[in-house]
Amino acid sequence: MFKAIVSAETLGTALDSVSVLVDECKIHLEEDGIAIRAVDPANVGMVDLSLDAAAFESYEADGGLIGVNLSRLEDIVGMADSGQLVELELDEETRKLHIQIDGLEYTLALIDPDSIRQEPDIPDLDLPAEIVIEGADINRAVTAADMVSDHIALGVDADAEMFYVEAEGDTDDVRLELDREDLIDLQAGAARSLFSLDYLKDMNKAIAKDGEVTTELGEEFPVKMHFDIAEGQGNVTFMLAPRIQSD
Amino acid sequence: MFKAIVSAETLGTALDSVSVLVDECKIHLEEDGIAIRAVDPANVGMVDLSLDAAAFESYEADGGLIGVNLSRLEDIVGMADSGQLVELELDEETRKLHIQIDGLEYTLALIDPDSIRQEPDIPDLDLPAEIVIEGADINRAVTAADMVSDHIALGVDADAEMFYVEAEGDTDDVRLELDREDLIDLQAGAARSLFSLDYLKDMNKAIAKDGEVTTELGEEFPVKMHFDIAEGQGNVTFMLAPRIQSD
Amino acid sequence: MFKAIVSAETLGTALDSVSVLVDECKIHLEEDGIAIRAVDPANVGMVDLSLDAAAFESYEADGGLIGVNLSRLEDIVGMADSGQLVELELDEETRKLHIQIDGLEYTLALIDPDSIRQEPDIPDLDLPAEIVIEGADINRAVTAADMVSDHIALGVDADAEMFYVEAEGDTDDVRLELDREDLIDLQAGAARSLFSLDYLKDMNKAIAKDGEVTTELGEEFPVKMHFDIAEGQGNVTFMLAPRIQSD
Repeated sequence: MFKAIVSAETLGTALDSVSVLVDECKIHLEEDGIAIRAVDPANVGMVDLSLDAAAFESYEADGGLIGVNLSRLEDIVGMADSGQLVELELDEETRKLHIQIDGLEYTLALIDPDSIRQEPDIPDLDLPAEIVIEGADINRAVTAADMVSDHIALGVDADAEMFYVEAEGDTDDVRLELDREDLIDLQAGAARSLFSLDYLKDMNKAIAKDGEVTTELGEEFPVKMHFDIAEGQGNVTFMLAPRIQSD
Repeated sequence: MFKAIVSAETLGTALDSVSVLVDECKIHLEEDGIAIRAVDPANVGMVDLSLDAAAFESYEADGGLIGVNLSRLEDIVGMADSGQLVELELDEETRKLHIQIDGLEYTLALIDPDSIRQEPDIPDLDLPAEIVIEGADINRAVTAADMVSDHIALGVDADAEMFYVEAEGDTDDVRLELDREDLIDLQAGAARSLFSLDYLKDMNKAIAKDGEVTTELGEEFPVKMHFDIAEGQGNVTFMLAPRIQSD
Repeated sequence: MFKAIVSAETLGTALDSVSVLVDECKIHLEEDGIAIRAVDPANVGMVDLSLDAAAFESYEADGGLIGVNLSRLEDIVGMADSGQLVELELDEETRKLHIQIDGLEYTLALIDPDSIRQEPDIPDLDLPAEIVIEGADINRAVTAADMVSDHIALGVDADAEMFYVEAEGDTDDVRLELDREDLIDLQAGAARSLFSLDYLKDMNKAIAKDGEVTTELGEEFPVKMHFDIAEGQGNVTFMLAPRIQSD
């Protein structure tokens, strides 16, 4: 059983953070909210999303699992004005999701969850450095790095108490330095890892420019980025595997 | 003889409703206003437009007929700001239309009307159901249907006093129901016909989102859609032939 | 030595007026400001730009010459908000330009000036007619001419005290007439020359719609267009060679 009402904006934001990595996903319809975990086909980027029942106008579920075509579902939700409500109801027999928006009913055929790539186990890493940064600064770093390279280094200089981003191109370089003043918070520790810019650009699309992103970093370790959605009644974790440094 | 001054916005809106169906058309320059009738090459969609002399700042004509390249004429009118005036004057000898916009004169070569597809006779149908609906709702229905199918059913459930739109895709379906409350007016009567979505999408482009559209429907009959332009000093009728239901 | 701080808007506007003609250019870093002269590969359009030291927040230079990739430099400047400051500093040893925007440092490799096309000598012509016109009117003329032709005539009717623009297409013609009333200033003299519309369209992109453009014209002579940038603390001259009239 699954029956819920949610604002188009909340649902859309939640789906965006998953669709930047995968086209299809499994959605867990837990009693206390929905949960999605997914990994991209190359096993490089992962997302872990939860959206609490409190983020919905009304919510009833008893632990089911559905598979959905994300871009189709986003298109439907995208037809609503951001303030409009989206009503979701699962028909267990036909395995279809009924979606209502102000008199418009869309019947979405679900996908067999067994046919969708297995959900990843997102490892619990103890990373030495953690920064809290504005989404707008991540956007600036990614945009600038993209002008010169297809990979990007994220690091923390523990002595200088500074977070930095570096990209080296064939002729030009980009470097962004943010110290304790420029950041919302900084827990210094030696950290530097190289990442694929393509993945960070995709993840950046799902990060609100005016939001806070908690970023955990290590030496040649994956980066973890956490941020709230739905005014704190949901949260997203991105994890991105490092690329091997080419020196 | 033809000489007229009209706001760029009024002329542009009028031309748009014809250009969604055809590239060239004949324009009747009647004493009391201009009139255009046209049918698309496949003989499926028709338009009947009249724009009264009162919609013009000044208007003089004595019953001529000209043939025009619509997209060319729209581009010229599109160069004006919406509040600007467009001056039109026909040179009978050279068969050219002089178009002036604030010091800019464009000389448009006309097309021989005999070389343009014949104007359709738009039949006077007595259709059992009539609804008056907001342009925004037509837009919603067409956009949603387009996500799942390339045709769309429009119908009236006489018992439930309800207008409905249905589209069936291979896996997903869309249904929009609007009852007397949601509509501006409803004259119930048994009606259901299937239409090509491509045509309805084109016609939808010419319908103001905040305007009212009177829609006449029957059982496997053409749909007729009427709406005002130029603040009531002109009106447009679209007629679209039904597709055969595939059951 | 070169070290300067300038608003992103001022620098961007200056670079735009050069990049519409060439991809790479030499920049003279004079004591009293920067200067750029460039000619397009076909030797048809030229630009002469100066931006005074007073247009900068701070400026120090001693007469160097650098070669830059313009589109790269524009992209970097384009990342700043228009009110943000751009800090420029030349590293003489590495021949790289360090560009800082609010904590972001971009290191731009320079181009050997000797590998860039030679700078043109912009001739001092004594042209008989001069008009001062709004940028918006140049834009109108170019947009309208582009609908019918790939070249455009600019002329002054000395008797009628009128500036005109003409374009003749295969079937349609465009003519824009602006008299003393419509212009900011007019110094009448016999003038008419034909120009490539492609070049004028590019130059038009660099002209502010609400700015004044002083335009000098002759009989089958180049046109010269002058306008201020940076609130008068810089100026641009475009010169465009005429096409031979085909009669």
